[in-house]
Amino acid sequence: MAPAVTPPRGMRDFLPADKARRERALSTIRSVYAAHGFDEIETPALEESARLHSGLGGDNEKLAFAVLKRGITGPELHEAAAHGDPLALADLGLRFDLTVPLARYYASNRAALPPVFRALQIGPVWRAERPQKGRFRQFVQADIDVIGEPGQLAEVELITATSAALEALGLRECTIRINDRRILSGILEHCGFDPARSTSVLIAIDKLDKIGVAGVVDELAEFGADAAAVLGGLLEAIEPVLAAGGAGMSAAEILAVLPEGIDPDAVAELEALAGSLSALPEAVALRFDPTLVRGMGYYTGTIFEIAHPASGSSVGGGGRYDGMIGRFLGQEVPACGFSIGFERILELLPAEDGSAERVLVLYEKDAHPERLVAAKLALIAGGASVRLERKAKNLRAQLERAAAEGFALVGTVSAEGEAVPELRPLA
Amino acid sequence: MAPAVTPPRGMRDFLPADKARRERALSTIRSVYAAHGFDEIETPALEESARLHSGLGGDNEKLAFAVLKRGITGPELHEAAAHGDPLALADLGLRFDLTVPLARYYASNRAALPPVFRALQIGPVWRAERPQKGRFRQFVQADIDVIGEPGQLAEVELITATSAALEALGLRECTIRINDRRILSGILEHCGFDPARSTSVLIAIDKLDKIGVAGVVDELAEFGADAAAVLGGLLEAIEPVLAAGGAGMSAAEILAVLPEGIDPDAVAELEALAGSLSALPEAVALRFDPTLVRGMGYYTGTIFEIAHPASGSSVGGGGRYDGMIGRFLGQEVPACGFSIGFERILELLPAEDGSAERVLVLYEKDAHPERLVAAKLALIAGGASVRLERKAKNLRAQLERAAAEGFALVGTVSAEGEAVPELRPLA
Repeated sequence: MAPAVTPPRGMRDFLPADKARRERALSTIRSVYAAHGFDEIETPALEESARLHSGLGGDNEKLAFAVLKRGITGPELHEAAAHGDPLALADLGLRFDLTVPLARYYASNRAALPPVFRALQIGPVWRAERPQKGRFRQFVQADIDVIGEPGQLAEVELITATSAALEALGLRECTIRINDRRILSGILEHCGFDPARSTSVLIAIDKLDKIGVAGVVDELAEFGADAAAVLGGLLEAIEPVLAAGGAGMSAAEILAVLPEGIDPDAVAELEALAGSLSALPEAVALRFDPTLVRGMGYYTGTIFEIAHPASGSSVGGGGRYDGMIGRFLGQEVPACGFSIGFERILELLPAEDGSAERVLVLYEKDAHPERLVAAKLALIAGGASVRLERKAKNLRAQLERAAAEGFALVGTVSAEGEAVPELRPLA
Repeated sequence: MAPAVTPPRGMRDFLPADKARRERALSTIRSVYAAHGFDEIETPALEESARLHSGLGGDNEKLAFAVLKRGITGPELHEAAAHGDPLALADLGLRFDLTVPLARYYASNRAALPPVFRALQIGPVWRAERPQKGRFRQFVQADIDVIGEPGQLAEVELITATSAALEALGLRECTIRINDRRILSGILEHCGFDPARSTSVLIAIDKLDKIGVAGVVDELAEFGADAAAVLGGLLEAIEPVLAAGGAGMSAAEILAVLPEGIDPDAVAELEALAGSLSALPEAVALRFDPTLVRGMGYYTGTIFEIAHPASGSSVGGGGRYDGMIGRFLGQEVPACGFSIGFERILELLPAEDGSAERVLVLYEKDAHPERLVAAKLALIAGGASVRLERKAKNLRAQLERAAAEGFALVGTVSAEGEAVPELRPLA
């Protein structure tokens, strides 16, 4: 036997049933976001290395696959080797997210875009991660972003559209956890952490789900034992509320889980956001969660994350990041985005059949191709999806396989007689 | 002004209108091929270098972007530099076509696929070409292949399905030029060329469109002046037939443009193929063309190419390549494929609007987000695609821009009064 042939490590082939499922979900997502006024764009899979490694991508920058310059020669290689820098060989890289390309796209095309630009971008991204369960080196992201809108309408439209997409996909029992980076800053200040260390402190708080309050306090001791103890007390007070699903979004519910005096503007804005979202579908609940951090450093205001009871990690998230989109443009542009965790959401979707009726047409060895194609075209004209298969010796096994593949009807074209076969259910 | 920010050389951003056009065309292609029983699959963008450089990709192998191994160190670089082989640094590469990945996919997944597998694969490919007009470094291919079918039914289904796709896309006046590699071999033998040089001879014949008969004869002189002269006479005899659109596909028409004694089996099969394709849509004509070569070396029988009067080069093509798909599997598997030149076909399509009605909703500065989203959701529920825009000082310019973007209706949400705006045509 020949040795096993597989796709590259951490990357996937999709069999027909899986691919059909993916395309159906993407089609649903596209049509919901289009109805909500988001314009789909596309950027290349590759960006220039300097752009990918500009500091906007956080830790993910380290995971960018580097793509070699063409026609590189021995002496150039020697020189690069002398500097010990393989990236010197590569002027391009595969994108590791859709946000850095969006910032580059906005800088390249701003003149052709509306003043407030609602972007939808769906496509594969690549990360050279150590392969592990549930982590892939190529996977699809689906992002919507509102660029140029400083007001809360951006958050409201993003959360409304994403909720509609989740509902249209058939996902139930979603919770959108909401927080604001200004509230997190207020909590850190209240505890007495050095503002210069706040990124490290936030990274520790982000691990609360995995290491618990004691673990977070341990990690934070190096930034001040007193501050860590105050935070520990606060987290212990909040924990029962989170365990019960998080706080609601009224000002009273928000304030009840916060120390006194935390940014009243941010609290008022969160309450107003919830008020503007009163018409969300039943499938989606809003919850305030003061421990929500979101990994990326670039968020400046509201942050949100989708939780689902059947998934251990979040199935989507986003927030406001006013400082970043304008980076390549050289000026500040307000921006807010929401990304669906496409691969995780796919795993949560109910099984479901395709739309067109699949028909299997069996034929005998001596059937003429012209006759077969005429039968096929007649059935296609009637709305079916048709596969021709030569009748196998083991007909029963053949029909069982077809049923497993999702075929609903079967018919036979013989060398003579009716050109369009009579169909019978395949069950 | 900040310096211009652009996508990488030879790669493209797509603005919303272009992207919408691309997605509509892809959706049409997908639904036609699904109806014709082709199962869509997906393979990763990256394949292992050794597979990409296995000789199946012809000249395109040289254009593969090489992707660097992760975590490569100084000493490894030195070693690779000493060998002068940059590919030693790269264990992965970006696919340059969809056929090599299909062969790999078939070897990886054969046990899960039906005995005769009709595959549809749509996706980007990358080629490190010198950028020039009409050539891109990232572009989309759309391939259908029938694997495991030795008989002519494969050709018939491929040409029928592709013709249906072209018709559904709105393309008219397509000609499918058809030939058979066995006929080309027969012609070369008739002229007296050394069979060992036939690949080089075919490459020269392939340039007939560009360099004319005299040019081809010149190029072929090095392979034998006598043989080149015989071929020249033959091409001159065929040329008026080709100029008139090619020969028809009856045996008499085929034989009329061939020297005597060329492979009678191949001629009979071409005639039979045309007979099986008698129900092609009016938009597509079949023509025999004995000078059709197709670039790739792997074809073994029928070859075909789509021509369109508005395009200087072919807009699609394919053929039978029985030796190749089984390469990674270690056994021969019959196969035949047809690839649509997606980027070229897009340029030929009539301009066309999207399906959902686009509605622009204007709002005043003090309109509350909740009110705006309620209006938006009501209009979406009625089937519209809705964008909210704050009313600009220059309303006329705002409406003109919206009309240019394809918006059909406009309405205004004010701070009080009707929650769902009255709409008026935007024209």
